[in-house]
Amino acid sequence: MNEVTISAKLQKLADEMGIGLISSDINTFVDGGVCAAKGWKANGIHCGLAHKALTDTEEKSQAANNAMPSAKKKNDLAMMYSERRAAAAAVYTTNKVKGAPLTVTKENLADGYAQGVIVNSVNANTCNADGIEKARKMAELAAAAMGISANDMVVGSTGVIGQVLPIEPIANGIPALYEGLSYTGNDEAVKAIMTTDTKPKEVAVEFTLDGKTCRIGGMLKGSGMIHPNMATTLTFITSDAAISPEMIKKALCENVQTTLNCVSVDGDMSTNDMCVVMANGCAGNSEITEENDDYGIFCEALWTVMVNLARMMARDGEGATKLIECNVKGADSFETAKTAAKSVIMSSLFKAAMFGEDANCGRIMCALGYANADYDVNKIDIDIASNGGYLNVCKQGSLLDFDETLAKKILTETDITIIIDLNQGENGAMAYGCDLTYDYVKINGDYRS
Amino acid sequence: MNEVTISAKLQKLADEMGIGLISSDINTFVDGGVCAAKGWKANGIHCGLAHKALTDTEEKSQAANNAMPSAKKKNDLAMMYSERRAAAAAVYTTNKVKGAPLTVTKENLADGYAQGVIVNSVNANTCNADGIEKARKMAELAAAAMGISANDMVVGSTGVIGQVLPIEPIANGIPALYEGLSYTGNDEAVKAIMTTDTKPKEVAVEFTLDGKTCRIGGMLKGSGMIHPNMATTLTFITSDAAISPEMIKKALCENVQTTLNCVSVDGDMSTNDMCVVMANGCAGNSEITEENDDYGIFCEALWTVMVNLARMMARDGEGATKLIECNVKGADSFETAKTAAKSVIMSSLFKAAMFGEDANCGRIMCALGYANADYDVNKIDIDIASNGGYLNVCKQGSLLDFDETLAKKILTETDITIIIDLNQGENGAMAYGCDLTYDYVKINGDYRS
Repeated sequence: MNEVTISAKLQKLADEMGIGLISSDINTFVDGGVCAAKGWKANGIHCGLAHKALTDTEEKSQAANNAMPSAKKKNDLAMMYSERRAAAAAVYTTNKVKGAPLTVTKENLADGYAQGVIVNSVNANTCNADGIEKARKMAELAAAAMGISANDMVVGSTGVIGQVLPIEPIANGIPALYEGLSYTGNDEAVKAIMTTDTKPKEVAVEFTLDGKTCRIGGMLKGSGMIHPNMATTLTFITSDAAISPEMIKKALCENVQTTLNCVSVDGDMSTNDMCVVMANGCAGNSEITEENDDYGIFCEALWTVMVNLARMMARDGEGATKLIECNVKGADSFETAKTAAKSVIMSSLFKAAMFGEDANCGRIMCALGYANADYDVNKIDIDIASNGGYLNVCKQGSLLDFDETLAKKILTETDITIIIDLNQGENGAMAYGCDLTYDYVKINGDYRS
Repeated sequence: MNEVTISAKLQKLADEMGIGLISSDINTFVDGGVCAAKGWKANGIHCGLAHKALTDTEEKSQAANNAMPSAKKKNDLAMMYSERRAAAAAVYTTNKVKGAPLTVTKENLADGYAQGVIVNSVNANTCNADGIEKARKMAELAAAAMGISANDMVVGSTGVIGQVLPIEPIANGIPALYEGLSYTGNDEAVKAIMTTDTKPKEVAVEFTLDGKTCRIGGMLKGSGMIHPNMATTLTFITSDAAISPEMIKKALCENVQTTLNCVSVDGDMSTNDMCVVMANGCAGNSEITEENDDYGIFCEALWTVMVNLARMMARDGEGATKLIECNVKGADSFETAKTAAKSVIMSSLFKAAMFGEDANCGRIMCALGYANADYDVNKIDIDIASNGGYLNVCKQGSLLDFDETLAKKILTETDITIIIDLNQGENGAMAYGCDLTYDYVKINGDYRS
């Protein structure tokens, strides 16, 4: 593998989170998030959507506690614009309760193209009798400002479920939002989709297709109600590569299975999950229309963006202090490996033990035991690893009398890997999660106020 | 319904927990737990199974924090004895990782009879290479002391998974355990099966069969790794009724579906779940061998014991401050109703909101949306209720602009009911859970030490 170039800004984010980045030698990490690719502008503003008005005292108290930025000032509305119509595909939550914006986005992407995005935080526009009407209105207002068709709009919302979305702040904010669109607007846009996130999460890579320099960049929000199935949270990914709607859909569906769908923060699948990928062709490569080498390169670049966004989301899970990765191998199928890996990272007891840095590995075996997949638990080996060391804790289903001092040293790190060998096949999967902390309870005990 | 008699001791326990008792007019609540029925003796002692030796300072600190009683002194070994062989049936965890005692108990109950029980806490005897050998040894030692066949022994263990069970403290403790067996030994026995439980959980009822006074009494342990499927945690139920092995098995399997299997504290299904019911016939009624009226009475009495034990377990879930009951009606089947109800009480986000007394009812809709069952979410109505009042919060899938002051008043109580009408059928189910609190994280961050 060649030396991987990581942009200073991305490296700083990874360092602050205490996690490594997963890279490949065909990609170079670049800055710019959703504006990294040619022809993409973005912006974010505070338009005034709020759970409630904060008093000055509350605002100071929030700031002092390093809590979510004050709803008075935090960006809550983002816009994205492509100079050309872009091939576009999306995957959505499988929750039966769906946010109204998903219905509208799905309708608009039916033809395989999009050109603009409007997305708000604070209010999910879900379980509201007038939800779809409001989501359509958002699309119309934003499209009119940008001079594009309302049918080419992606609409997203995230926040509290079941509160009527006030359209006025959005309508009033759109002119300034449009005026401020820029090729460096990703910083403001990503702030606008954050809810309980403590860090803005963006990744972008550069690669070569057909002799042309191409880019893919994305942003996503966490950080609670995270248990994706067929999609995850709100993720927006842009590219300047030329690729057909059919192939971009295929690339998204393949990659989401091993990235965003392998994350669980709290087992609660959101009503508003959506991951959209849009590619506008501004890089000038010949359009990818089949599964050729260029498609492979595009897929690898997309995977790099998505897997790092997924890991950042897990690491910044509500209240989390650690990224927990579970690597299951030796399974009879990918599905078996994924089910086993997700069962471990979803176990509340295991997550609490990771927070306590307690190598209570019986809880790993317990979670492997109740996972909805077939395997012989008496063949399982388990190791735990981090920058602090590597330790075998379970052999053939029986826990070992391992070195507790080394176990503690491993678990004090912020990036922990659990390696599980089922020893009954050739397939593997990774799942990404975090620890369960007091702050998760604190954040979610009073989220609306 | 006639006035229900509740024993003073049980009423005190319910009052301390802040929950009501579910009763029926054919039963009278009595004291005595697993010793309430004729011919049953029990005892519990501290034999010295320990995670580690505590220093005096640690012990004082634990006592000051009102934490789990010191491992030095807490009862950790219980024995039960019936004067006659009893018809017996059990249900077990469906976790693929099973505690060794379950294998031994299953073998011993194959003939439909049991006469004694030996059970320890602190160590689960699970994921140990010598587990089954040790479980058989426990049965042999206890049976020899009681002068009964080792094949008539029920064996149970609960505690940390994956630590080798030392047989010496058990072997050394059995003589004193046997000597101390008594008709009022239920108090010591129930203490011996507690792990992170804060209250001993026992319920017993009296009823009439065939003109004879009969009793059923039970004890169970909580309070983490609680997400039963086909069984739950450790539950021991005794009776003096005469009933055949076939019919007691049927009664248990029917009742477990609507009681213990409807509880979830943390979504983690234990490796050592087991619920055993034993009836020795000492009451002198004619043996129940078919589904006649007497069987119906026996079932109702058994249900009363099991549902109240289930609710106590939920209320005393690790770190819990509230019992949360979810009542789903209007479903096309019991399974649909149960799946929906359990999805709500298992949602970490909903549980945290209950702890925060925040009526974030969108999280109820979200959990109903991702439940693995089919229904139209646009027909759902939701009410919340407690001794503090009753409030409709959702109508036909849309959340209402409800009275937040009344909602707060309802949620400050310790016994909360969520009433969900799917409005698409005639079936219903109840599920029992608790809130998610800082103390859950605290207890489980460092359980082993």
